[in-house]
Amino acid sequence: ISVFNHNVDATDKGEYRHYMMKEIYEQPKVIAACLSGRLSENKVLTSCFGADSSFLKEIENVHIVACGTSYHAGMVAKYWIEEFANLPCVVEVASEYRYRKVAVPKNTLFLTLSQSGETADTLAALRMAKELGYLTTLAICNVPSSTLVRESDLTLLTNAGAEIGVASTKAFTTQLTALLITAIAIASEKGQLTEEKEAELVASLRSLPAYVDEALKQDGAIKTVSDQFANKHNALFLGRGPMFPIALEGSLKLKEISYIHAEAYPAGELKHGPLALVDETMPIITMVPHNTMLDKLKSNLQEVAARGGVLYVFADKDTDLHNEEGITFVEVPKVDEVLEPIVHTIPLQLLSYHVAVVKGTDVDQPRNLAKSVTVE
Amino acid sequence: ISVFNHNVDATDKGEYRHYMMKEIYEQPKVIAACLSGRLSENKVLTSCFGADSSFLKEIENVHIVACGTSYHAGMVAKYWIEEFANLPCVVEVASEYRYRKVAVPKNTLFLTLSQSGETADTLAALRMAKELGYLTTLAICNVPSSTLVRESDLTLLTNAGAEIGVASTKAFTTQLTALLITAIAIASEKGQLTEEKEAELVASLRSLPAYVDEALKQDGAIKTVSDQFANKHNALFLGRGPMFPIALEGSLKLKEISYIHAEAYPAGELKHGPLALVDETMPIITMVPHNTMLDKLKSNLQEVAARGGVLYVFADKDTDLHNEEGITFVEVPKVDEVLEPIVHTIPLQLLSYHVAVVKGTDVDQPRNLAKSVTVE
Repeated sequence: ISVFNHNVDATDKGEYRHYMMKEIYEQPKVIAACLSGRLSENKVLTSCFGADSSFLKEIENVHIVACGTSYHAGMVAKYWIEEFANLPCVVEVASEYRYRKVAVPKNTLFLTLSQSGETADTLAALRMAKELGYLTTLAICNVPSSTLVRESDLTLLTNAGAEIGVASTKAFTTQLTALLITAIAIASEKGQLTEEKEAELVASLRSLPAYVDEALKQDGAIKTVSDQFANKHNALFLGRGPMFPIALEGSLKLKEISYIHAEAYPAGELKHGPLALVDETMPIITMVPHNTMLDKLKSNLQEVAARGGVLYVFADKDTDLHNEEGITFVEVPKVDEVLEPIVHTIPLQLLSYHVAVVKGTDVDQPRNLAKSVTVE
Repeated sequence: ISVFNHNVDATDKGEYRHYMMKEIYEQPKVIAACLSGRLSENKVLTSCFGADSSFLKEIENVHIVACGTSYHAGMVAKYWIEEFANLPCVVEVASEYRYRKVAVPKNTLFLTLSQSGETADTLAALRMAKELGYLTTLAICNVPSSTLVRESDLTLLTNAGAEIGVASTKAFTTQLTALLITAIAIASEKGQLTEEKEAELVASLRSLPAYVDEALKQDGAIKTVSDQFANKHNALFLGRGPMFPIALEGSLKLKEISYIHAEAYPAGELKHGPLALVDETMPIITMVPHNTMLDKLKSNLQEVAARGGVLYVFADKDTDLHNEEGITFVEVPKVDEVLEPIVHTIPLQLLSYHVAVVKGTDVDQPRNLAKSVTVE
């Protein structure tokens, strides 16, 4: 595994027009850096959590608290933690968590996510959590010298290197990588994973940088598609299961840098209201990994097409989906199911980037936003 | 407490132009019907859950599963259950819950919400839950003869009478009323409420129909405001704490019947992305109950106003907010904090109704939607 040197060219766009694009293309390297030294042949090395990893065996519940893009990463982790470790996991926005009375079950891990480690609401949530009797506090963070790292009991660094673009890209996918490492470690220490299953998950993790690299190869195709968004003002993103948080993240990226009012829904909720919005002016972006939910999602897509909605489907070849009247198909590599949320993030980053360029916005410094939200 | 007779005029609009308006105005009566026979002088009568209410003492966790508007009601209940009963509560969309591996802690109550009791995903979630070792299953439902009621161990009927308008109004506020009754009952039986506190909450519940009636008196003022939405295509709804789900519900109503792309955010998340959308064309609707979050929310409002956003603030007089350049103030009655989510729902229902009338949509039967989603 190659190690990415964070100090080189962090403030140099190199061959890229924008930091955001440079950071999107760095992802295979920084994900490898996030994995580096944390996997043995068949297992996650629990030493990545520090000298004493005995807390992993004691965890009975997980609370994840974060803001913005980091919150979406936490939402994906809930699926992994409940599925692999069979532990209840709750994910909450920091600015909500800190202002309500929270019931904390016995032996709950308090896990925060922040790129900068200086997000005001997340820090305040951590300080509050320390008074509530949690088992321990773990920060997944990109900045080793940050306040969040300093004030947490334990840290897992994302090793993404400096991120300059306001719209987070490589920080998000390395957070997901670190969260998957954490979920596997908890599940393994809790005796919920067979050796075979853990070895399989570790092999998936090892293949991740290559799959992300492959996903980046759709850049040209996505650039072509992005022209169709030049005059759009709204969009809906649909996903099911762990692809729902990815739909949220895709819609947030489009909001942040292209100022398109994009919103995400779990695909099954469409019929409970938002379908009323769908007409021929509303593009619908859907992530369709080839997994057990495919048939359900195809039926949701038919509902949308029947109402004149214009569909953009990000899917692998095995789905049997393709370009046709009213459907634009964008190929995403076929990957192990556990990696789908990470790999499917890449085309959505590229889409938001190219749409922003077409719209002529300030990609790296969108209006009204700051890179780190250090005020409440 | 007056009892509302469900069979009279359910299919007659009476003096109203649309069923939705008739149903909005029925809310004081049907909330009273939902409370009827369920309160003693100072306590919730646990007999409303059936002859054997001993399960209440055993509850250690609560899972709430629902779709659409009912899901928003469940989200409010989480705040009540964690605050009053000090029990962890998780709320999930039925179409997501039923397709993932769920970790179920010991002694968890499985609570479903559905107006019709025939919502396909909610029924499927209930059937799945029955195999997962829950303590018991409770349905909060409006139709006594429904499949959901028949298949659940326990039922608390909302007593809202037939709801004809596709956009749910009285079904939602009676669900909230039934959920507050449930939260108080659990908290009381778990020994988490003092007699004084329970008596205070019961007194609040008794005052609810009158407060809802008072909130309806702003109808004329809201009708005037609604003219300003005639040419709007987007809107943001902001709330904090239990007012966030109400913001979600307000935005869903506007989507459903006026086809405006309205989206809700917890106010503290604005700076983490959606603020990029805010310019002079984007109306921002905020619920500002006069409680401990007021100062934080005022600071969020200033961020929006500074970016040219047009603000609509629904608040009580004590907030010191008023009409000024860029801010339209709509008065909501000052009520006990626990009632704020229910009472603040009323002006949002009226807003969506009047905007739909201004836009000339088919209020009672919006495009693409069915009243009960009995398919997956």
